[in-house]
Amino acid sequence: MSLALFCPSKPADAVDVQQVAPGVWRLRFGNPEPLTPIHFRSAEPAVEAMKSLPAAKDLPIALKQISFSVRPRGCTLELPMTRGERIYGLGLNTTFFEMSGKRAFIVPGDQPENEANVSHAPEPFYVSSDGFGVFVDTARFASFYTGNVDPTSKPPGADSAGNEAASAGGVEDLYRARELRKRTMLIDVPTAQGVDVYLFSGPAMMDVVRRYNLFSGGGCVPPMWGLGMAYRGLNKFTADDSLKLAQSFRDDHIPCDIWGLEPGWQTHAYSCSFVWNRKAFPDPDGFVRQMGVMGYRLNLWEHCFTHPTSPIYEALAPYSGNYRVWSGLVPDFAMPEARKIFLGLHEKEVFSKGISGVKLDECDYQPFRSTNVWSFPEPSQFPSGMDGEQMHSMLGVLYQQTMKEPFDQRNLRTWGLVRNSQALASPLPYTVYSDSYDHRSYVRGVAKSGFQGLLWTPEVRNAESVEEFYRRTQTVIFTPFALINSWFLRMPPWMQVDREKNNAGQVMADHAEVTAAVKKLFEVRMSLVPYLYSAFNEYHLHGTPPNRALVMDWPEDPNVAAIDDQFMCGPSIMVAPMFTGQTHRSVYLPKGTWYDFWTGEKYEGGRRIDIGKPAEIGPVFVKGDTLLPLAAPTERFADNTCYDITVRVYGDHPSAAALFEDDGVSNDFQQGKQNRIDLTWAEGKGSEVRTGSYAGPARYRIVGWDRVASKAIK
Amino acid sequence: MSLALFCPSKPADAVDVQQVAPGVWRLRFGNPEPLTPIHFRSAEPAVEAMKSLPAAKDLPIALKQISFSVRPRGCTLELPMTRGERIYGLGLNTTFFEMSGKRAFIVPGDQPENEANVSHAPEPFYVSSDGFGVFVDTARFASFYTGNVDPTSKPPGADSAGNEAASAGGVEDLYRARELRKRTMLIDVPTAQGVDVYLFSGPAMMDVVRRYNLFSGGGCVPPMWGLGMAYRGLNKFTADDSLKLAQSFRDDHIPCDIWGLEPGWQTHAYSCSFVWNRKAFPDPDGFVRQMGVMGYRLNLWEHCFTHPTSPIYEALAPYSGNYRVWSGLVPDFAMPEARKIFLGLHEKEVFSKGISGVKLDECDYQPFRSTNVWSFPEPSQFPSGMDGEQMHSMLGVLYQQTMKEPFDQRNLRTWGLVRNSQALASPLPYTVYSDSYDHRSYVRGVAKSGFQGLLWTPEVRNAESVEEFYRRTQTVIFTPFALINSWFLRMPPWMQVDREKNNAGQVMADHAEVTAAVKKLFEVRMSLVPYLYSAFNEYHLHGTPPNRALVMDWPEDPNVAAIDDQFMCGPSIMVAPMFTGQTHRSVYLPKGTWYDFWTGEKYEGGRRIDIGKPAEIGPVFVKGDTLLPLAAPTERFADNTCYDITVRVYGDHPSAAALFEDDGVSNDFQQGKQNRIDLTWAEGKGSEVRTGSYAGPARYRIVGWDRVASKAIK
Repeated sequence: MSLALFCPSKPADAVDVQQVAPGVWRLRFGNPEPLTPIHFRSAEPAVEAMKSLPAAKDLPIALKQISFSVRPRGCTLELPMTRGERIYGLGLNTTFFEMSGKRAFIVPGDQPENEANVSHAPEPFYVSSDGFGVFVDTARFASFYTGNVDPTSKPPGADSAGNEAASAGGVEDLYRARELRKRTMLIDVPTAQGVDVYLFSGPAMMDVVRRYNLFSGGGCVPPMWGLGMAYRGLNKFTADDSLKLAQSFRDDHIPCDIWGLEPGWQTHAYSCSFVWNRKAFPDPDGFVRQMGVMGYRLNLWEHCFTHPTSPIYEALAPYSGNYRVWSGLVPDFAMPEARKIFLGLHEKEVFSKGISGVKLDECDYQPFRSTNVWSFPEPSQFPSGMDGEQMHSMLGVLYQQTMKEPFDQRNLRTWGLVRNSQALASPLPYTVYSDSYDHRSYVRGVAKSGFQGLLWTPEVRNAESVEEFYRRTQTVIFTPFALINSWFLRMPPWMQVDREKNNAGQVMADHAEVTAAVKKLFEVRMSLVPYLYSAFNEYHLHGTPPNRALVMDWPEDPNVAAIDDQFMCGPSIMVAPMFTGQTHRSVYLPKGTWYDFWTGEKYEGGRRIDIGKPAEIGPVFVKGDTLLPLAAPTERFADNTCYDITVRVYGDHPSAAALFEDDGVSNDFQQGKQNRIDLTWAEGKGSEVRTGSYAGPARYRIVGWDRVASKAIK
Repeated sequence: MSLALFCPSKPADAVDVQQVAPGVWRLRFGNPEPLTPIHFRSAEPAVEAMKSLPAAKDLPIALKQISFSVRPRGCTLELPMTRGERIYGLGLNTTFFEMSGKRAFIVPGDQPENEANVSHAPEPFYVSSDGFGVFVDTARFASFYTGNVDPTSKPPGADSAGNEAASAGGVEDLYRARELRKRTMLIDVPTAQGVDVYLFSGPAMMDVVRRYNLFSGGGCVPPMWGLGMAYRGLNKFTADDSLKLAQSFRDDHIPCDIWGLEPGWQTHAYSCSFVWNRKAFPDPDGFVRQMGVMGYRLNLWEHCFTHPTSPIYEALAPYSGNYRVWSGLVPDFAMPEARKIFLGLHEKEVFSKGISGVKLDECDYQPFRSTNVWSFPEPSQFPSGMDGEQMHSMLGVLYQQTMKEPFDQRNLRTWGLVRNSQALASPLPYTVYSDSYDHRSYVRGVAKSGFQGLLWTPEVRNAESVEEFYRRTQTVIFTPFALINSWFLRMPPWMQVDREKNNAGQVMADHAEVTAAVKKLFEVRMSLVPYLYSAFNEYHLHGTPPNRALVMDWPEDPNVAAIDDQFMCGPSIMVAPMFTGQTHRSVYLPKGTWYDFWTGEKYEGGRRIDIGKPAEIGPVFVKGDTLLPLAAPTERFADNTCYDITVRVYGDHPSAAALFEDDGVSNDFQQGKQNRIDLTWAEGKGSEVRTGSYAGPARYRIVGWDRVASKAIK
């Protein structure tokens, strides 16, 4: 108990500062831990691409305004916040959008709809509305106090009218005072005795995000089949069940590229054996081959917890954590040995058979609750030196990296699903999904994903009604992984939405109409594949996220600052989903001209409009002066697929657009084997210019230019 | 990334072991932190009293069965658990009762009804049904994984039928497997590089708890007035408002000992000035005097956060934490300087005026949520060397200790309220209360409080109906602080339960009947004051908690293991509250004979009965063969109060009972100035024997013996 123990925060002007990439500075405070997201990064920074971003001159925050402090329980940083500063990012929690005035926990969890900012992708990175980004390189369960702490290092109420105005009113005063408090960002990093902070310059939020995504290595590019429709069948489906249903899709011309198998493919799941269940799948090779003949790419569910009956259990034990989950080992994917053993079995059972992707489940956690404690404890120890807290932060990323290796070795792209990710993940070809299921929250997740190099699918599972099934489908077709996940339904939901009736084989009376309507929505998705493929190539080349909140495109418009029920899809499409029970909704159109995607109706922006769409169609808008290439819908992507493109022309002076042409499945495009087709419109006439050295089958044939502006009704 | 970093837990047979009190062993693991509950203990162990507990021979857990491990993020312990072992304690969370199979966070919070075991009294102490106790001496936010982790140090499924039985069923397997898992207690202490663990021997759970309470210094003894009724008036009451309402209680002979003032007594609250608001209280001395003349003891609300307008703000600043709360300083009560400055102002404004107690609000926290973040952050620094995490654990205890000092100096007892406590708190004369308000949870809180040296009041605030008001009152009168907290009501709730109508001055039509019924309940409480005073003296002398769950009295009866909707009050009374809407309820009567407190009806125990009571009365039972001394109800305790006692005689061979007689207000009883009146019954005749050296006014006059057994109806 001595004053000598008191060590107040000090200005950090003596800190080690390095510019590590164009517009990115690393500030080293104290003695950082070794095992962090940067240590485990998936790719090197795309420095060349970063050079083309707006040139940044100096650190976005003056060093002398930053305080740093170390204590036995960890270290902290204080950063200045301006009064109106808004904070975006800090993970994929789907309850919150704008993050200022909160304590944001950077903690993974199995339910991203919660009040603690727990999410399937906790990320110690934020984008400030003041035009810079901050990444704190830690695998600890850090907290960001975003403008709601009141340090005594500043005079009391210096900046707070609350103190003068307040009277002895009790709790009434409380909320008012908080609103008026001056602002400091406090970042709390437990355990670590130091930390590297990366500052990303703007000037705009979009520049910050692009810089961050490129610093992470650049966004992933899906195989073209990854942008098609995906379907996951009943958990208990046998090979025959899958083959039969998959064939029926082809018979009915229902688009589908990806077919998912749930846990039932394994001899043991929860935890996993990673061995085919030969009762349900007597001939796995034959099954994969038959599905391939029908043009499906297979995606296999698993989690990493390795059951004692798995052939690798004994070998994996020395490279696993010291607590089991569901009786299964937790492989330490930070150890090359663990990856090798784990992939050895997967090579035999999965990859050598031609599986195209995986769904990596249960790699998150259950913080902050006392019951249903299923994953390994935070104090777990792993042979790599990580503890359970660090592993919970990194497991999703390490697992994704591990399962990508076999595809890299084959020079193939993959497209997978994962239930936990973290920072610097933009190069990883996986989309985050969730067990939580509120549609409104799912839409918020799509909007939020753009702030931080992550992809999110609002997958469609159950629906209380046909209307809900339509509404959810209308959202998912504009996101990276257009997934109908029927893991608990024997028939597709368009045959019967009611779970019990579905599994009892009772078809809905109006299933034909519903099937037709759903098929139309799937076909919309298929018509967007070339457009989305361009958006993903932009993600890769320039870091521009394919899905984004409006505030990234219109940072100067105060009306969009909090909009999280609309999102951008690619450069020009804005989606404003309707939710079950709504007959109409309010949609904000940013300044400029907008067109109804379905009707071509023209709207002047800079205002809210009220719009209604029937259950079968959701509100979708196209920005004015856009060239929108739409494909004649295919059922799936094949090696020889060539899309018939009609370019919709919105407005009189549309910006140029581009299509990216390559083999669609390998990584050769990264070595330049890719063509770029530039589409332009001038004097009432469209033109296309193809450049590049890809020499395989043509992917696109421009079959028409369709002037939407001319038929605008207003 | 090297195997060398892997440091598995090791058996702790080389640990430093000391027997620190009879039946209590301290196990020192690693290098413990200095600032812990033991460091801040409120009293020395009552070693002499501990000697009278059943003699314990050896450590209740073999050392070689305990593993200990240290890592940068903290240290952990593994203890063995038997298959059927139940865990009680680990704080006053009111959602959970029996604690095995959970992750119990030892974290303070402002809402004890939650799924994370957060509570108003997080306590790293548990009582095992196997007859021992474990106290982990830490102010860290520790976690107890109570039998739900699966260490790889044990063979997979050694003890788990789940593995053999399981098949590839997916999530269905999950829950079954968890139920069957073998059991290890994992204790996670963040930051600390070592920890002292105290093992308390039994043999019974009651012995464990008594030992723990005596080790803490022995239970507190309230002043006799502390056991009367307590009322808190409207937040905005002026002196005149209080005086007028207080006088009306006397006019109507409504029992009341304690009168509480809410924040309105101060010039500024949220945060606090600790200075009388002279607009509402122009003459504080006169007000206190006038209330005293009417026989009221005053209790003043406050929290410790010190507003800039408080006269001590400048002086306190160097002895405060480095973040303000509601613009107020957080005093570091671990510093004598902070206590001195804080108490200096309180001496002037509060204690010198004759205030009898305090209500210490807001000394808890809001962990695990992102919004409404009101208290100081965990990385706060305090001049004593504590950080915010440690201070959140200890603030309630330190604040209680601080505010008890002025009473100790005056040789007076006090009786207060507090919203956060922790371990070793049994000597502190404060009762924990809560803002959360579920009646069912409140009853659970009463039952749980007995496991760990804490007192809990299910205070009555609002009620949706007269029935609810009755039901809640029927619970609170059997607990340490019989509080009607009308901080948002202008009139007492028995005049009008509806908040809005109450404050609009609209009296209920049936207020006279309601008042009469409530008065009767208050009088039941007043008749119990001598009985409760004995129970508290037993708490002090032998550590026996005045309120307890049934499992402490009947540890061998498996039927009571989970009962948390009934509780013991003193040695012989069992309360089984009814909840709003119930016309009857199931009550478990442990083996033996039981009597209805109200009617004398006799029941054979060892079974469940179904019982209903009208709204005005709740089910209360008296154990067979009991002498129950009941007083003619008084309105309040005065210096010359002498209770007229009728001893109810239940059964033919009742156990002896005792009354404790002293001045009722000072600490002289601890120096032997106390008489003990032993009541016995033999051959149809009662007798009383008074021993001791207290020579003040007699407190008890035995006016009759009332044989209840004789009028038993069965």
